[in-house]
Parts: sequence; structure tokens; C-alpha cells
Amino acid sequence: MQSLRVALGAQAYPIHVGAGILGDAALYAPLLEGRRAAIVSNAVVAPLYLERLRSALAACGASVVEILVEDGEQAKRWETLDAIIGAMLEARCDRRSVVIALGGGVIGDLAGFAAAIYQRGVAFIQVPTTLLAQVDSSVGGKTGINHALGKNMIGAFHQPLAVIADVGALATLPPRELRAGLAEVIKHGLVLDAAFFEWLEAHMERLLGGDPQALTHAVVRSCELKAQVVAADEREAGLRALLNFGHTFGHAIEVGMGYGSWLHGEAVAAGMVMAAELSARAGPLDASAVARVRALVARAGLPVEGPDLAAARYLELMTVDKKATAGRIRFVTLEAIGRAALRDDLDPAAVRAAIACCSPARAAAQ
Amino acid sequence: MQSLRVALGAQAYPIHVGAGILGDAALYAPLLEGRRAAIVSNAVVAPLYLERLRSALAACGASVVEILVEDGEQAKRWETLDAIIGAMLEARCDRRSVVIALGGGVIGDLAGFAAAIYQRGVAFIQVPTTLLAQVDSSVGGKTGINHALGKNMIGAFHQPLAVIADVGALATLPPRELRAGLAEVIKHGLVLDAAFFEWLEAHMERLLGGDPQALTHAVVRSCELKAQVVAADEREAGLRALLNFGHTFGHAIEVGMGYGSWLHGEAVAAGMVMAAELSARAGPLDASAVARVRALVARAGLPVEGPDLAAARYLELMTVDKKATAGRIRFVTLEAIGRAALRDDLDPAAVRAAIACCSPARAAAQ
Repeated sequence: MQSLRVALGAQAYPIHVGAGILGDAALYAPLLEGRRAAIVSNAVVAPLYLERLRSALAACGASVVEILVEDGEQAKRWETLDAIIGAMLEARCDRRSVVIALGGGVIGDLAGFAAAIYQRGVAFIQVPTTLLAQVDSSVGGKTGINHALGKNMIGAFHQPLAVIADVGALATLPPRELRAGLAEVIKHGLVLDAAFFEWLEAHMERLLGGDPQALTHAVVRSCELKAQVVAADEREAGLRALLNFGHTFGHAIEVGMGYGSWLHGEAVAAGMVMAAELSARAGPLDASAVARVRALVARAGLPVEGPDLAAARYLELMTVDKKATAGRIRFVTLEAIGRAALRDDLDPAAVRAAIACCSPARAAAQ
Repeated sequence: MQSLRVALGAQAYPIHVGAGILGDAALYAPLLEGRRAAIVSNAVVAPLYLERLRSALAACGASVVEILVEDGEQAKRWETLDAIIGAMLEARCDRRSVVIALGGGVIGDLAGFAAAIYQRGVAFIQVPTTLLAQVDSSVGGKTGINHALGKNMIGAFHQPLAVIADVGALATLPPRELRAGLAEVIKHGLVLDAAFFEWLEAHMERLLGGDPQALTHAVVRSCELKAQVVAADEREAGLRALLNFGHTFGHAIEVGMGYGSWLHGEAVAAGMVMAAELSARAGPLDASAVARVRALVARAGLPVEGPDLAAARYLELMTVDKKATAGRIRFVTLEAIGRAALRDDLDPAAVRAAIACCSPARAAAQ
């Protein structure tokens, strides 16, 4: 097991990463003694891991409440939140109770937001069971649900007490979801750490094969990199926006195709290739770096091109992205592998060209 | 106009109190330049004050969105929140937009909570138009809604950018609501400031008559006292609990009678008399102090006795109060006028006796 600390002053917390640690009572004991623990999970994850988690919590002397919600992105709505809060009230959870999120990003977003607003805020612990949740949602404190008019439009920043990231749980993850999680791992290298990107180039096959040591390093390094950014910029004013690399295009793909047809990580993967192409056009990223981005994304089994959407549709979808300020599109570009910049001065023609050279039409023409 | 500052570090904010200040553009200008302002109000308050507020905001160069929600406590539910957030999304409010709560405590709770969770948090300004909201909800940052299983069970601590408390707006307040607001004013004197309690004894008739100077002083001093407590204890861990004086009994009255039949301030008023009686029994409050509490509550036109509820029913209702920790009832008692204490060691017999001597049966027997 390896551990790191997210330095957020009074809200600082540890992330523990390792194989089989989900059931390690010693990790929970200092946080839970004599408190009530409300585990929030779903019908996919619960049969696999709930019993081990419950045993560990019971060994700490915590009284455990189990709350199962439906699976999938569509669970992120008021009704599910109301059900979680209702179950906690029925179980007489008080302000000292702790919510424990056992599952992927949806469970983390829902359970974390329920914790943020239950009696104006109770503590929570993340036990992420997908690679995406381990490397992305376990750092940053973002929680929330969707509104009919937009994804993640409702939520709170609420930091966990601790994150227990068990890479052993990735063995039961569908391969497509493992690959989608790798998109965010690659992103962290691209935006912040050239050496980590090189390490990923050297270890991609071991990661895809589920090697626990390689996965532990990838999760730890991703969390360290994201944690540095978040610690410097908790409220997403500036630096943190760099972590949106690939996400402006990716967001357009997800919305344009209808949520769910592309996984978030798949859309981000194609979005990163587009953003790299844009960076080469806008400067100063060189063409060999773009080729390395394409190659690693492809080796991870992720799409290097977007769906069949017109460039005009991309532009339309990107301007309603909530990361847009006052109608202008802000892009994160690469200056080199491991170094990113925030730009809002880009020529729309360069944006259209970047989209075009990652489109199926262009691929078919080759 | 008088102003005070709530000292909460990075979340510090000013409260301005005076007659006719609601339409003073100079108070909003530094907060709103070039930003979108979403005014949340209801059909009772909007016809009286919305036009003046809108003109002031327009004079600051803010683009204004108006969102009307239904009136009353039952508006504090998910559906209303969803409607506010939906209207903000439709108006393309972004993270720099500011929510403005124009109305009483319900509007403040709803609009403040919507601001707390809209795109994970935007700024808000309180323009309270009831005495209760001016002296109570404008300090402390409590926002939220009700759950079917309990009042104020869902919410967030979210501090405003500023509070503009116009005592001129109290002229249109129903007298019963003015009196209910005075209950919290009296409470602040009782718990924290004997000199202010004496001032209230000397000025109660002027307050009831709507004298702007007296009302300004009462609001400013109440806010100052509450602000001192909140600054020392933002998250209600210890000191802030003293502000719940009268509220444990009051909560039982509100729930026991069904929300709405007693106003919150009326229930708190009777609850304060019960808590004073309890303090005399548990010590060391003397009988003359209890008599002063009774007398001032009565002069404010507020109830000095509870409804016809059995003592056992009070005890049952008080143990499910969310301020109870692990099933034990915590009471705020008075040691003297102007000095309170938190006790969880009280004899249930003393609690029953305090209830009995403030019951209609006892009054009828005299």
C-alpha cells in the first residue's frame, strides 16, 4: 500500500492506494470509532464488495446502514438524493455520522453531495472501485447531480475524510471502463508530468493487463499530480482549469452523441487528440508530440478520433459548456508534453481544422 | 444607515441596516458590476419591493433575472430548488452570477441554498424583508430546505456577499410577524447581553410601533451579537448552540402542533419562558429574572405559555430534534439574564415541571 496526502489545510486528507485494502479495518478505525456509517452503493458493486467493507466497518465498532441506489449516470438526480437522505434520516444518522461511497464516479458524486447537504454537512469517505473514480473523482472534492438542463450543474465542493482506493477492485471492472479510466491517467501525464507520460508509454500493456503494482503507481502518481493542482486552486479559478485538457472537445462529444453512448473517458481520449492537434496549429506543440499522444491513446485501446459530428455542431456545443465564460470558448492547450496552457484567443479555423483531422471522414479518406 | 461586519476570514461580509436602503444602488454597485443578478422572491413581496430593487441593480449595470417562487414554508422543497436552478440555467447564469434573496426567511433559505449548489456555488446577497430574517437568518450562513422526514434536514452553510436589511420594509409586515421576529431579538439579549435586554425593556413599545430608529438599533445589535458567536463558531460545534435558547421547547411546539399553526417566533417565545423556568429549577437563575423574561415576552405580544401538549409528548418530540446528540436532550439554560450555558445533565422531572408551569392547564387553574 502507498499513501499520499491532499494538502488542503483544515480539509487535508489521505489517499491510500493498494491491492486488497478495501477490507482493511485499520484504515477506517481512526475515522469511525463509535460513529454511524451510511454505505451508499449500487446493485452492481454491492454483491462484489459490500460484505468485505461492512465487516471492516463493524470491526471498528461503527454501526452500519446500507443504502443501495440505481446504477448509472441517470441516478444523479434529485429523487436519488432524496432517497439517500431519507434513508439516513430513518436510520437516525446525526451530524457525526459518516457517509461512505462504495462504487464509481456516480456513487461518489451522489454520496458525496448527500454528505455535503445532509444536516448542512457530514463527513464522508470515498471507496472508489473504478479506475476513473480512483484517479479523478477521489481528488478535488467535486460532488453533485445533473439538472434536466445540464450535467453536473448542481453540487458542492466537499472534501472526503479519506480515500481508500483498492486497485484489486479493478479486476472486476469491464475492460472498456478500465481503458476509459486510463484516459484521465494519460491526461495527468500530458498536462503536468512528462516523466509520468514516459512511464505510461513504457507500462501501458502491464496496466491493461491489470498488474497491481503498475496500477498502484499509476493511481498514486495521478492523484499526486491532481492533488498538487487542487491544493493550489481548490475552487477552480485558474490552475485547476488545466485539468480540463481534452474535456471541452470531450464534453461536446458526450452531449452531441447523447450521454452514455460514449464513456466519459472515451470522449476525453478523442478530445485530447483534438486538443493536441489544436495545440500544434496554435503553437508551440511540435508534430512529434502530437504523434506520441495519438500513439499512447491508441495503445490504451481508446478512440483517437471523434464521432461523425459536424465542426459547427462541436462549436455550438462547446460554447454552452459551463467552463465557457461569457460566451467565449476557453481551451486548454499543450505547449509540450507535460506542460499545458489556458487559451481563449484561438482562431476558430484552427479549432475546425483540429476537429476535421480527427474525424471519421478524414480517417476514411486515408 | 448603520453597518457592521461579520468577521469570517475570507467569507467576511457587511450587514447594512437602515430605513429605505433597499433601493440604494451604491450598496450593490461594488458587488455586481457586469455580473448577472438572479432575484428570487415571491408573489407577496415582489409587488411591494421588486421594482425598487430591480431599478437599483439596473443602475449598477447588472443584467437582472427575476424568479418568483411560491410563498410559505412548504416552498422549501426539492421542486422549488429545481425551479430556481432551472430558471438560472435558462437565463445562462454562470459561475460569476449573483443570487439575490428578496423576502423573508423562506426566500433566504431557498435562494441561499440554490446559490450554494448552483454550479457548485455562486455568490448571493440577502435583502431580508421580515424582522425575523433581518435578525436571524442574515447572520450565520444557514441555508436549506425541508425533507418529508424533517425540517431543515437538507442544506449548506453558505455566507452571503452582503446583507441589506431595510427596516422600512417592516412597515408592510403583518403585526403578528413583527412580534414573532421580536422573539429572536429578545433571545439575543437574554443569551448574550443584559444591557441590550434592558434596552428592549425600555423600548418595546417603540419597536412594536415601527419606529425606524429603534428598529435599526434592535436589528444592528442583534446582528452584532449573533455575528460574534458565529465568527467564533461557524459550524455550530459549541458556542453557537447557545443561540438555540428556547428552540428545543419551541421545536417541540412547532412539530407537535403541525408546522404553521404557531409561527416559529411564537414557539420560541413560549420555549424561552419554559427554558427560563427550567433554568430556575436547575439553577442558578433566580425567580425575579424568570419574571422579567415572562413580562417582556408578554409585552411583545408573544405567548408565555405553550399549547395543550402533554409533557411526555414534549419529551418525545425533543429527543428527535437534530440538536440532540446520541438520543440525549441538550438544553440551553440561563445562568443570569445575558449569560447562557449548555446542559445535558438535567433531571427530566425538572423539564416536566418547567413545561407544566407554562401550560394552559396551569394557567386555567390559577
